[in-house]
Amino acid sequence: MEAHNGLSARIVEGAGFQGIWASGLAISAAMGVRDNNEASWTQVLDVLEFMSDATSIPILLDGDTGYGNFNNARRLVKKLEQRQIAGVCIEDKLFPKTNSFINGEAQPLADIDEFCGKIKAMKDTQQDEDFTVVARVEALIAGWGLDEALERAEAYRQAGADAILIHSKKVNIAEIEDFMKAWNGRHPVIVVPTKYYTTPAQRFHELGISTVIWANHNLRASIEAMQRITQKIFCEKSLIDVESRVATIDEVFLLQQADELQTAEEKYLPCSGKLTGDRP
Amino acid sequence: MEAHNGLSARIVEGAGFQGIWASGLAISAAMGVRDNNEASWTQVLDVLEFMSDATSIPILLDGDTGYGNFNNARRLVKKLEQRQIAGVCIEDKLFPKTNSFINGEAQPLADIDEFCGKIKAMKDTQQDEDFTVVARVEALIAGWGLDEALERAEAYRQAGADAILIHSKKVNIAEIEDFMKAWNGRHPVIVVPTKYYTTPAQRFHELGISTVIWANHNLRASIEAMQRITQKIFCEKSLIDVESRVATIDEVFLLQQADELQTAEEKYLPCSGKLTGDRP
Amino acid sequence: MEAHNGLSARIVEGAGFQGIWASGLAISAAMGVRDNNEASWTQVLDVLEFMSDATSIPILLDGDTGYGNFNNARRLVKKLEQRQIAGVCIEDKLFPKTNSFINGEAQPLADIDEFCGKIKAMKDTQQDEDFTVVARVEALIAGWGLDEALERAEAYRQAGADAILIHSKKVNIAEIEDFMKAWNGRHPVIVVPTKYYTTPAQRFHELGISTVIWANHNLRASIEAMQRITQKIFCEKSLIDVESRVATIDEVFLLQQADELQTAEEKYLPCSGKLTGDRP
Amino acid sequence: MEAHNGLSARIVEGAGFQGIWASGLAISAAMGVRDNNEASWTQVLDVLEFMSDATSIPILLDGDTGYGNFNNARRLVKKLEQRQIAGVCIEDKLFPKTNSFINGEAQPLADIDEFCGKIKAMKDTQQDEDFTVVARVEALIAGWGLDEALERAEAYRQAGADAILIHSKKVNIAEIEDFMKAWNGRHPVIVVPTKYYTTPAQRFHELGISTVIWANHNLRASIEAMQRITQKIFCEKSLIDVESRVATIDEVFLLQQADELQTAEEKYLPCSGKLTGDRP
Repeated sequence: MEAHNGLSARIVEGAGFQGIWASGLAISAAMGVRDNNEASWTQVLDVLEFMSDATSIPILLDGDTGYGNFNNARRLVKKLEQRQIAGVCIEDKLFPKTNSFINGEAQPLADIDEFCGKIKAMKDTQQDEDFTVVARVEALIAGWGLDEALERAEAYRQAGADAILIHSKKVNIAEIEDFMKAWNGRHPVIVVPTKYYTTPAQRFHELGISTVIWANHNLRASIEAMQRITQKIFCEKSLIDVESRVATIDEVFLLQQADELQTAEEKYLPCSGKLTGDRP
Repeated sequence: MEAHNGLSARIVEGAGFQGIWASGLAISAAMGVRDNNEASWTQVLDVLEFMSDATSIPILLDGDTGYGNFNNARRLVKKLEQRQIAGVCIEDKLFPKTNSFINGEAQPLADIDEFCGKIKAMKDTQQDEDFTVVARVEALIAGWGLDEALERAEAYRQAGADAILIHSKKVNIAEIEDFMKAWNGRHPVIVVPTKYYTTPAQRFHELGISTVIWANHNLRASIEAMQRITQKIFCEKSLIDVESRVATIDEVFLLQQADELQTAEEKYLPCSGKLTGDRP
Repeated sequence: MEAHNGLSARIVEGAGFQGIWASGLAISAAMGVRDNNEASWTQVLDVLEFMSDATSIPILLDGDTGYGNFNNARRLVKKLEQRQIAGVCIEDKLFPKTNSFINGEAQPLADIDEFCGKIKAMKDTQQDEDFTVVARVEALIAGWGLDEALERAEAYRQAGADAILIHSKKVNIAEIEDFMKAWNGRHPVIVVPTKYYTTPAQRFHELGISTVIWANHNLRASIEAMQRITQKIFCEKSLIDVESRVATIDEVFLLQQADELQTAEEKYLPCSGKLTGDRP
Repeated sequence: MEAHNGLSARIVEGAGFQGIWASGLAISAAMGVRDNNEASWTQVLDVLEFMSDATSIPILLDGDTGYGNFNNARRLVKKLEQRQIAGVCIEDKLFPKTNSFINGEAQPLADIDEFCGKIKAMKDTQQDEDFTVVARVEALIAGWGLDEALERAEAYRQAGADAILIHSKKVNIAEIEDFMKAWNGRHPVIVVPTKYYTTPAQRFHELGISTVIWANHNLRASIEAMQRITQKIFCEKSLIDVESRVATIDEVFLLQQADELQTAEEKYLPCSGKLTGDRP
């Protein structure tokens, strides 16, 4: 399930999910910039560090193209491992990236050999054997067709990718079905049903898909809610009818784990409530 | 109206508000940390820069204690001006700060002379004459009473503060009313009705209050919405019933101003759609 | 004259230079990384902000390729202007960049039209009319010859570049002489005599060159000195013979402008030496 | 031996030293700011991350007061461990700190119990058992005398500090000798002979001191060298007499480990020298 900051990450863990999708679209949108590498990769890393600190379940980063060539990508792996991020998904597009859903026409893709070299470099760099590199195949979404998608998926698998993310922007799952049949269970496959959201979850299971990513719904839920409440306060100039529609202040403190700090203050401060710099 | 990142800031401007409150509580909560200076002041500054880039209306920073002494506070002013932030509100507590709503007992306050020196240093530092320094009086909330609040407000006014923020955590407005009567219009006053939210807006106007801050309601709206949607997706393992309850993907692109980039690509890229490093 | 952090920038200003070259090679080397976009562009920006804060003379950033396409480059311009950086030099190579002096063979260059689009986007973005965009022609250094260099310089001039930086890695100035003769004073030209360092300064003047950049000599001076002193202390396990060979501690305080803070403390602290949080 | 960025850290390791002192004075001076918490603690952390990436020997951070109270200090420990920093030294002064060498008069010190609580919180937070917390006793330097110094050192030892750093600004070692005699080998002791630099190293050994920190000599060596070379270039407007006095460009590349990247390019790029986005 998508998260885009420490808060949403904690909410995802709190709901019971087993993993977090650190969406590039959601993180950039939350910052107020576009999903075209307008935020630098270290600014994204700073967000990830807060997300990692706030949670204990695995986080998979939506890592665009790896933010450059193989050298940038292997540096990224090192930085992600330092921050206890469980893995990264890189896509076979060019830097700076464009969002997959904006342009309709056929988009250029990365050279297959160059992308495989990037995967190898990343796998050779990781120190924790559980770190995961997912290769996202953009061939379908970029208009290159099924054969290209299969060729790329197989090449990335052989280069060492731990899973294939096959992306589609069709409103039905036909493309994905064709891919899964031809792929025939060679290696784990991940899907992102943002566009084919009407597909029942059971269908993914039948097709042998390992993992489904709900890719941007926390962001979109927050946008809807903030637009609604902001508009309401602007019109009514009052909170009377707002208080019951938003989380309580106590819920905010709960999510911030304010209680842990109060316990720690009792343990580590000379006497409760006494603050740094306070003198007798 | 509160905002805590570039996205919420843009939503606030979009609704028609004339100013943005960059809430310390909301920014820290969004990061997944506590409102006790766990995020460094430069990490807060990075958030503010995204908020400033995303909007054109004034942003007032909830600047805690100024993040240290007068020297830290005047450095903050310089950094805020660089990022086109319109002003900062500092509070007369000690560093590292505690959130005003958590502890019930009387809390220590900053030395009046030291706080006045901080205000003077900040006013002497600003280069844009419109930059605003607001002094937040915590005397009522910290349990020191009305006289202390009035003495401090007057001292801060004389030290050069552009406005006084008088804070109260009572559920009714009695404390604020007493303050406003005794204050008698000496200088602009700002209030934050998070606890006394049932007070009709008209009452603030009657009392001569200049500005009302709706201090954390975008954050709280987003928490409620994200918890609800995350729980729903976790239970249903499906998006079928989710799509209509969240903002559309196109709304996300609209908030990111994706259209401006498409126009710019037509203007600055050699031929439309052609990307850097594109291969035949 | 090159600087790579706030300290070296202040030293450059102190010596009387009229401008600072924020060298990509020197900044990355000081960080301990390679000059191949291993540090993100915002990490470079953080260094620049310290350099700008520490000085009052113009700083020209060695901005690699602009850190991506036209959109990244125009975002860079906005961020540089916020930090009072006077200008940026971009080079017609591909991202991620390689250092011009490492590989001997012919290197790929940016597409001319794409690079001109980038220059136009940058010039259209700047708000301060004095902001300067310098186009660095890598044709000579990449092995493409004089005609290519002239064609590119002219195209970049027409696209709006404020000056041309013509780069050469020959140990003599012959290439530069040929360029300057053919160029015939069309537009200001900048050179970087790192390799042809034996050329007398008078020769640059005769050729009509506007500006000479001493591109990395503070970095290299500091490396020589630190290696020498570190080795000496390691061998002698003593400072007796070291003290006279390094700057004094007072010189460090002078460069940090510690005196200004002492004056300010007298002005803004209640009584000298009294610190934040101190209570009666 | 002191280092203040990735470059100087690598030089220290290259010389054979077994550990690096990440000096607060040197790091702030290199940034061009004062040693009074003008740089935020996360800006210092960013420098440390580059230093850690560039080296393989232990780094001990000069961590001022821990940048706030026990909560800030324990957060610091977590962040340092993520970046493979071996330990941190905290001093018993107040935030924001002043440099120990600037003011002559008696300075306020942290409350002993509060400081012990901070040490305990840090020790309880570390996950790597080798992480080291050093308690720096400022009593001598702040004018409180030997008894206060001993009382504090003992309290900090009992609170869990792994070593005591006893600081003195006398030009002879008398104070330190008195401390060491009274201390009588209870726990490891570290000294910083910046002011009593004429003391032979043998004397430290005889007194039972565990570790000597050469605290700022790389910074001071670089200042002397940069001032000299910058002045020389400014006067001579030529590099002819400079080249032999600074490190070579090849030395810079060597320190950046450029060779490793060339090897990696051969391994991970499709064909040697071919770059991402290369065109025919």
